[in-house]
Amino acid sequence: MHNHAPVPVGVFGASGYVGQELLRLLAGHPGASVAFATADTAAGDVVEGQHLVKTGDAPLARAELVFSCLPHGVSGRYVQEVRAAGRRAVDLSADFRLSPEAVYGLTEFARPRVAAADLVANPGCYPTAALLALIPLAQRGLIDAAREVVIDAASGVTGAGRNPKRELLFGEVSEDYRAYDAGNAHRHLPEVRATLAREGGFSGDLVFTPHLLPVKRGILETIHVPLTVALDRHSAEDLYEAAYAGEPCVLITRGRLPSLKDVVYRNRVAIGVVPVAGVARPRITVIAAIDNLVKGAAGQAVQNMNVMLGLPETAGLAC
Amino acid sequence: MHNHAPVPVGVFGASGYVGQELLRLLAGHPGASVAFATADTAAGDVVEGQHLVKTGDAPLARAELVFSCLPHGVSGRYVQEVRAAGRRAVDLSADFRLSPEAVYGLTEFARPRVAAADLVANPGCYPTAALLALIPLAQRGLIDAAREVVIDAASGVTGAGRNPKRELLFGEVSEDYRAYDAGNAHRHLPEVRATLAREGGFSGDLVFTPHLLPVKRGILETIHVPLTVALDRHSAEDLYEAAYAGEPCVLITRGRLPSLKDVVYRNRVAIGVVPVAGVARPRITVIAAIDNLVKGAAGQAVQNMNVMLGLPETAGLAC
Amino acid sequence: MHNHAPVPVGVFGASGYVGQELLRLLAGHPGASVAFATADTAAGDVVEGQHLVKTGDAPLARAELVFSCLPHGVSGRYVQEVRAAGRRAVDLSADFRLSPEAVYGLTEFARPRVAAADLVANPGCYPTAALLALIPLAQRGLIDAAREVVIDAASGVTGAGRNPKRELLFGEVSEDYRAYDAGNAHRHLPEVRATLAREGGFSGDLVFTPHLLPVKRGILETIHVPLTVALDRHSAEDLYEAAYAGEPCVLITRGRLPSLKDVVYRNRVAIGVVPVAGVARPRITVIAAIDNLVKGAAGQAVQNMNVMLGLPETAGLAC
Amino acid sequence: MHNHAPVPVGVFGASGYVGQELLRLLAGHPGASVAFATADTAAGDVVEGQHLVKTGDAPLARAELVFSCLPHGVSGRYVQEVRAAGRRAVDLSADFRLSPEAVYGLTEFARPRVAAADLVANPGCYPTAALLALIPLAQRGLIDAAREVVIDAASGVTGAGRNPKRELLFGEVSEDYRAYDAGNAHRHLPEVRATLAREGGFSGDLVFTPHLLPVKRGILETIHVPLTVALDRHSAEDLYEAAYAGEPCVLITRGRLPSLKDVVYRNRVAIGVVPVAGVARPRITVIAAIDNLVKGAAGQAVQNMNVMLGLPETAGLAC
Repeated sequence: MHNHAPVPVGVFGASGYVGQELLRLLAGHPGASVAFATADTAAGDVVEGQHLVKTGDAPLARAELVFSCLPHGVSGRYVQEVRAAGRRAVDLSADFRLSPEAVYGLTEFARPRVAAADLVANPGCYPTAALLALIPLAQRGLIDAAREVVIDAASGVTGAGRNPKRELLFGEVSEDYRAYDAGNAHRHLPEVRATLAREGGFSGDLVFTPHLLPVKRGILETIHVPLTVALDRHSAEDLYEAAYAGEPCVLITRGRLPSLKDVVYRNRVAIGVVPVAGVARPRITVIAAIDNLVKGAAGQAVQNMNVMLGLPETAGLAC
Repeated sequence: MHNHAPVPVGVFGASGYVGQELLRLLAGHPGASVAFATADTAAGDVVEGQHLVKTGDAPLARAELVFSCLPHGVSGRYVQEVRAAGRRAVDLSADFRLSPEAVYGLTEFARPRVAAADLVANPGCYPTAALLALIPLAQRGLIDAAREVVIDAASGVTGAGRNPKRELLFGEVSEDYRAYDAGNAHRHLPEVRATLAREGGFSGDLVFTPHLLPVKRGILETIHVPLTVALDRHSAEDLYEAAYAGEPCVLITRGRLPSLKDVVYRNRVAIGVVPVAGVARPRITVIAAIDNLVKGAAGQAVQNMNVMLGLPETAGLAC
Repeated sequence: MHNHAPVPVGVFGASGYVGQELLRLLAGHPGASVAFATADTAAGDVVEGQHLVKTGDAPLARAELVFSCLPHGVSGRYVQEVRAAGRRAVDLSADFRLSPEAVYGLTEFARPRVAAADLVANPGCYPTAALLALIPLAQRGLIDAAREVVIDAASGVTGAGRNPKRELLFGEVSEDYRAYDAGNAHRHLPEVRATLAREGGFSGDLVFTPHLLPVKRGILETIHVPLTVALDRHSAEDLYEAAYAGEPCVLITRGRLPSLKDVVYRNRVAIGVVPVAGVARPRITVIAAIDNLVKGAAGQAVQNMNVMLGLPETAGLAC
Repeated sequence: MHNHAPVPVGVFGASGYVGQELLRLLAGHPGASVAFATADTAAGDVVEGQHLVKTGDAPLARAELVFSCLPHGVSGRYVQEVRAAGRRAVDLSADFRLSPEAVYGLTEFARPRVAAADLVANPGCYPTAALLALIPLAQRGLIDAAREVVIDAASGVTGAGRNPKRELLFGEVSEDYRAYDAGNAHRHLPEVRATLAREGGFSGDLVFTPHLLPVKRGILETIHVPLTVALDRHSAEDLYEAAYAGEPCVLITRGRLPSLKDVVYRNRVAIGVVPVAGVARPRITVIAAIDNLVKGAAGQAVQNMNVMLGLPETAGLAC
């Protein structure tokens, strides 16, 4: 497939759901090898054949690039050590997503910057789906900023992490469904607003309501977009296909709406659209789905690594 | 509890999920007894101790009141036979919900009419939750008709019936989540519009998007309401508590938002509210949850029967 | 239904799954009222309308009978306080199940003793299903003690309690299935052995292997019984029907095997049988299903309370 | 990775769960390419980028090897056409599993025969797990044929296929669990018996009871083995590790028992053992887990194809 020796990479925080998924992807990657993987309370465990060492004991010199899957607030400090050691980093926490120090790694809209970056801030899971759905409309000036964009997002439980909490027990989550952080209280909202303004020039109001789904993985966002001009289904699908022409990790589901099964275990966003009938002013409903652990986290991180290292962008990824 | 002999009632269409639930509720009802239960392809089966007969063979004379859980389009004809036989009826199909022949049985807003009715059209599951959430705001003129009300509704699979379809197989639904009938294509929308206009005087635009949840029972609706004036959380909760003071089947979840586990196996709607921060114009998010088989179907039908027969309104029901 | 004032009862440990289920059942019980309910870390919470007080602060004098849903090892001490206060008790923990101080409350085989008891040890969930399946065969001398009885039991997660543990997270349990405490290591086994010897005169070898099912509630046990004489299906079904003639909480599923949906939310054991073909010596497979929270815990506790107080045995229970 | 052009292969019956999984695996296979894929009612659909043609219209000449995922009873006829066209075949149906015309493709015990075969009968899902667990014990004469081997097997619903049946609806399967074909009525039993006799020389009695799990994929078998001599856990684990030394698709879980999450989406059997305490005669419990769609069907088929074509045995497979 290619002739170079695999690039050695390190993984901070490999015992959570995202870290495990990243090790799984790297285990099948033809151009990268895992130099070390770390954990804190789980140090000593073996995940995907890797013996986890304490994060503070990571042999940074052995890796060319380090992924950090550490928690928000903890990751930043260790990522600075990586940079001090002269290594490149992909940070999967939120610590650098609004920082000018890092390139915001929404790959489809940041390739050249990612390729040159020493530090990539990997986007959040909810923002990835929302932004890939909204930026094409925003860039074309189609969103009516006089009305609010309403985003109802539903995520599987791996998005909430692997630490034991009563509210995440099977006995609580199974057969249940609920909103949380409603009323624009979710910490991902500033990331969506900032990127939509920067990439799409849109600064109108957003209403973002996440929900907890009784599934293991997957995010589906139902995005209600007020339009400046009416779009029929065919035109809207054409618009998205043109916006993402040649993109290997974007699927436009013509004539149907995507569901989680279009995306789980894949590094892909699936986007479908339908105009809204029976209302006075033009509107479209956009459905965007991703696997929160893949395109929403570990997969997009590998995609960014591939771009940074000059490897084929989808190496090691099923899109 | 009371001294009257149980009232004999009949059930058309007892082999589906709604019919089975109705027989379960009637089996524990202190003031009603099942005179007959019917099915078509499942005639001959035994459900909750009832031997199902063909619908056409139902001994109408033995019942004082008949419930019909037959499919839309089929139910109407059999309900007319019930009325021709001089029996009262509660029709759980959509066949009479927009018809002047029937009283629309959203019990909390129709008690006197239900008490006097010969034919009650039991509300649809999605409309029940949406209407109980929106009517109090509409009646007080709080909904800004210049902006659209966006309703994202998620339902468990029993709402889709018990006929075998590939898209409803466990292998398809489990770990999946999807929208359907998006773009205002769902047949329940006219029922919501008509009732909201009649009971709340509201005729603004609605955007209704149903979703299929990987759970057996329960509906949760996330309702985005543009307001004419700002409401803080406390005031909004007070408003709903005042609107439903004394109602045994309505729970206002102060300080938290409801989830399916507040309502499953209960004849109850749970409603919670939160104002939306960070937007230019006032908005509130209302969450309403019901069990689609109970308050959304069989339970509300029993509640209506109780009102029609002068029994305690919650007899046989856990609220 | 009856004319007596409801009997005031107390509940220790009402914040776990069993305690919540018990409060739910008592809320609908026509002959009992809840005088108090307790918890420890959850003191101050409200469950089914009851404000939970600290267990040490329970006003014992207000109750005629106290249920304890406290953990094994903790319950015993508090139950002794109940007895010291001259109140009767039903202990749902394992603390008295092998003790001569208590009557073992497998209701169907212990009615007169339960009626007279001051302290009833409510059976464990796995033992309830196993014993109701095996005692009729043991009593008739049909089990071949020269070969082992193999019991594979599968339980929903509420059987493991409500304390947060990683292994019980939705992200771990969903789409998974596993054995635990295999090799006869489960603490319920001595309870099964002792009761089977006492009630059925059987002292042969048992192999008991519990499994964790990705469901909220329900236990299904697949019990492999070597027989002293061959039994055809019809005879075996007759045998069980005769053994349980008139029992309101036992369902023999003739011609089919039971599944969890026969029993969830009901105070019922469902038992089905099938002889094993193609083997040299006679064998039967018995399937027994219960709801672990109802017949396996809170429901059987209410059944025992009804017997102790002289109320109808199924009052407040759906069987 | 290798320098040969990909081998063109065909897939009969690509619209079911097994066929879809096979196309997914082949899409990521470095040494094979899909020449055609067929279906019957689903002809015209696109699965994994393949346009499905009618099975009767398959261009057999374009493929070097054909997989058949057609139903039992249908597959045989089409496989004969493949052979008449001079192409090699891997049949995933049961049609040739007991036939001398085919090599039974339990890869770990049939490599040289598979390599030379024109027709491989891919093992059934239940037999794969049972045989890989039992053959090592049988080959060493450790199973006490005077007592029965009891196998309780639990499978996810994709094992039952994708045709719509009421009993497989999400509304029926979720939160349920049940045995089926109990009493040795399952059609996979003769395949287990015949292979265990041929490969392990064991002809004692088996009791096999399959169960339907509320999960999408995965089989876990709890196998109760009477032993001729006692084995402690360490010795038993050593025995299995020795039996499967160097095998890339077998995992022995020392010190713990496997669960479905050890195997889903992988072409692997995971085997764990524990001796049974407190019984008079020696016994061991063996737990074996596979993904029914991978090692139990499509993955093992690809493993066999790799052996037949001289490719690396795990090419295209995550083990």
